[in-house]
Amino acid sequence: MIEDTIAAIATPSGEGGIAVIRVSGAEAVPICEKLFHAGSKKLTKVPTHTVHYGHIVDPSTGVQVEEALVTVMRAPRSFTKEDVVEISCHGGFVSVRNVLDLLLENGARLAEPGEFTKRAFLNGRIDLSQAEAVIDLIRSKSDRAFRIALKQSEGSLSKKIKELRHQLVELMAHIEVNIDYPEHDVEEMTNTFIKDKCAAALLEIDRLLTTAQQGKILRDGLVTAIVGRPNVGKSSLLNTFAQEERAIVTDIAGTTRDVVEEYVNVNGIPLKLLDTAGIRETSDIVEQIGVEKSRQALADADLILLVFNGAEPLQPDELRMIEELKDRQIIAIINKLDLPQQIEEEQLNAAFGEECVVRMSLLRQQGIDDLEKAIAGIFFSGQVESSDLTYVSNSRHIQLLKQAKHSLDEAYTATEQYVPIDMVQIDIRRAWEHLGEIIGDSVGDSLIDQIFSQFCLGK
Amino acid sequence: MIEDTIAAIATPSGEGGIAVIRVSGAEAVPICEKLFHAGSKKLTKVPTHTVHYGHIVDPSTGVQVEEALVTVMRAPRSFTKEDVVEISCHGGFVSVRNVLDLLLENGARLAEPGEFTKRAFLNGRIDLSQAEAVIDLIRSKSDRAFRIALKQSEGSLSKKIKELRHQLVELMAHIEVNIDYPEHDVEEMTNTFIKDKCAAALLEIDRLLTTAQQGKILRDGLVTAIVGRPNVGKSSLLNTFAQEERAIVTDIAGTTRDVVEEYVNVNGIPLKLLDTAGIRETSDIVEQIGVEKSRQALADADLILLVFNGAEPLQPDELRMIEELKDRQIIAIINKLDLPQQIEEEQLNAAFGEECVVRMSLLRQQGIDDLEKAIAGIFFSGQVESSDLTYVSNSRHIQLLKQAKHSLDEAYTATEQYVPIDMVQIDIRRAWEHLGEIIGDSVGDSLIDQIFSQFCLGK
Repeated sequence: MIEDTIAAIATPSGEGGIAVIRVSGAEAVPICEKLFHAGSKKLTKVPTHTVHYGHIVDPSTGVQVEEALVTVMRAPRSFTKEDVVEISCHGGFVSVRNVLDLLLENGARLAEPGEFTKRAFLNGRIDLSQAEAVIDLIRSKSDRAFRIALKQSEGSLSKKIKELRHQLVELMAHIEVNIDYPEHDVEEMTNTFIKDKCAAALLEIDRLLTTAQQGKILRDGLVTAIVGRPNVGKSSLLNTFAQEERAIVTDIAGTTRDVVEEYVNVNGIPLKLLDTAGIRETSDIVEQIGVEKSRQALADADLILLVFNGAEPLQPDELRMIEELKDRQIIAIINKLDLPQQIEEEQLNAAFGEECVVRMSLLRQQGIDDLEKAIAGIFFSGQVESSDLTYVSNSRHIQLLKQAKHSLDEAYTATEQYVPIDMVQIDIRRAWEHLGEIIGDSVGDSLIDQIFSQFCLGK
Repeated sequence: MIEDTIAAIATPSGEGGIAVIRVSGAEAVPICEKLFHAGSKKLTKVPTHTVHYGHIVDPSTGVQVEEALVTVMRAPRSFTKEDVVEISCHGGFVSVRNVLDLLLENGARLAEPGEFTKRAFLNGRIDLSQAEAVIDLIRSKSDRAFRIALKQSEGSLSKKIKELRHQLVELMAHIEVNIDYPEHDVEEMTNTFIKDKCAAALLEIDRLLTTAQQGKILRDGLVTAIVGRPNVGKSSLLNTFAQEERAIVTDIAGTTRDVVEEYVNVNGIPLKLLDTAGIRETSDIVEQIGVEKSRQALADADLILLVFNGAEPLQPDELRMIEELKDRQIIAIINKLDLPQQIEEEQLNAAFGEECVVRMSLLRQQGIDDLEKAIAGIFFSGQVESSDLTYVSNSRHIQLLKQAKHSLDEAYTATEQYVPIDMVQIDIRRAWEHLGEIIGDSVGDSLIDQIFSQFCLGK
């Protein structure tokens, strides 16, 4: 039972034009009415989905604490399916806190992170995979990732999971009949039927799992290290990336100040750049940050952009680097194409493959398209872009899909070995349950709490 | 003429539950209608002050880019007195930028910082001092500062300025009659009349100016340095402050990462603490940060909190500090009251005055009230709190009030010296003009641009 009314600041903290406080629950409108003055207007009497200008007044002192626009959205036509009030006031630090304090003093409870979305889930407006997509929407680092999350939030993955589960339910019903009425003696037919159905479901699960790698990259970014000797152009490359309109720099809340994540988008593929602060400050990552740290960056990277100065022959430490990194996902960038070239390009082609060697002049901004193409090539390597944008990107979903696949594999093998069908039934049920967990069927409270605790406040 | 339609992201950037994009201008509703899909609903047909759920769709591709709640507020009942649409979408980096881009592609122009408020001013909804209060609202660092800004945004200062100007206009009219009809020969009477009127206006201006010092502190914070030898309790003091619910830490946008402003509120008086990073990291500001930097902090401070260890006699460097700082605004804090006391308290009393010496045990959290009282004592020293919350806090306003005062002083003196009244008239007119600039009468475009450029985007 969800009985209390929750409130939280829903906009990021900081100076801004507008800050919004969201209130949800049965008492949302009456609580806000206590604080809101707009002539003789009563919030409890206004129609749903209307906006009202007025003042927030502390009912205990009569002091005006804020000017506000208040929006009333009544159940069930709201984000949570409950009565929702959104109070839009001046951005900044003081005002929103004062308004929130007054709401808490007058009967609302401070919402936990993600609690609004959790209510949308518990009240049946969205399922768990849709709720999880909401946080991906907020965190997305590229257009493509955002569109995928938007699709998922609107139920694209849920739909596929439900279809799969429906097939398994039918299969289980069929088996049930055979268990209950063994005299029908249709075992051989049933075995074929089970195998076909399992194979079909496995095919669909495999299809979803093939999107997982791309999905995870789109969601979390392709972890990318820029590596090279001093003065080969690493910081120019970084600046070229950063000039792109969609470079995103985020501070990670709650950690020390020097952890900065920098994302750049290359054709909609988000690269999460490692150690950019180091590159920017020193333009000399290897020497300054120390071997240990740059080795760590290299070890963590999904993709290494190895930058060379085309105007010089390969140096001994570069040759060592090529040897060391030749099995990794590399794009070799030969910079300074504007100068007479002395680099042994064939050696790079041989080590990394021609399609992974890009010739550029960062000074003249040449070759950027080629680099983007090379990156896209790696990202889509051997895979086709999911046309309907249903990517599996959430680790929890991937894990559950793999478990469902495992159970169905077991069922398939068991059927081949003429294991009694009531045993096979157990595996199929397990697969059905794993899939159910993706959309929040039969999941425990602690898992739900854990999922929503990753949300930001006010969502 | 304001003809184009402007758009901007109005919420702070960062991850959050909600982001709001504001659109204002004659084309606001039709432009948004091009992007907004909600069944057969047309935004151009919906009533004012209503909210609509739907999707933002790129009209050139038909791709859904966001889920949104759209609020329509028609002129003149809006922040800008123009048609305003607010698009509320998922917080985060990608979504709001995409929606903003679509608005810009479909006929809106990116708003300059403060341009919404500027339109509210240019369209006559608020005057200049009210507009300036809007930015103070966002930036305020304490409840008291916020309430003062709120009053000002609702016209409390404007009202007083208008009253003053009205008095001066009456006075000028009176003088005008005398210039036009000198034969009436009421010069002596007029001189007395002018002197009385000038004196009354001067009294009111002086009253406003007495609020300026407090007003500026409330607006910008009392710049406070915490100083003392190692291990006397500086970082404990800082932590005690920071535990207060209303401690505010802000990064200053656009500057290097290590410039962090930290504000704490003591009875509604915001202290802007200097060098808190240094204190926190080392608990040893003087030694670690170097003499030069801490001398700078001392030079900048409005208030110095000088912390001593009560369990030790005064040390030679402390005696030097006392001598050096004795003419500054000091509160001497004798910490470690829980230990046997050895400090020469009388010496501190003699140097700084008994009311500025506070005995504390930060370990036991004793004496905090006394410290707060001492700070409030300094803040309100000899001054009474403005009962109607009309403080002058903006440097521009203070400057103009001083100029008006100067012109009226000249007028007063001239009258005493029987200078011809048409000369006196010039001074009075000048005072009237200075006051007019406060509320935005007869100010040039460049000043207006400069004022609004201090605003954040989307306001």
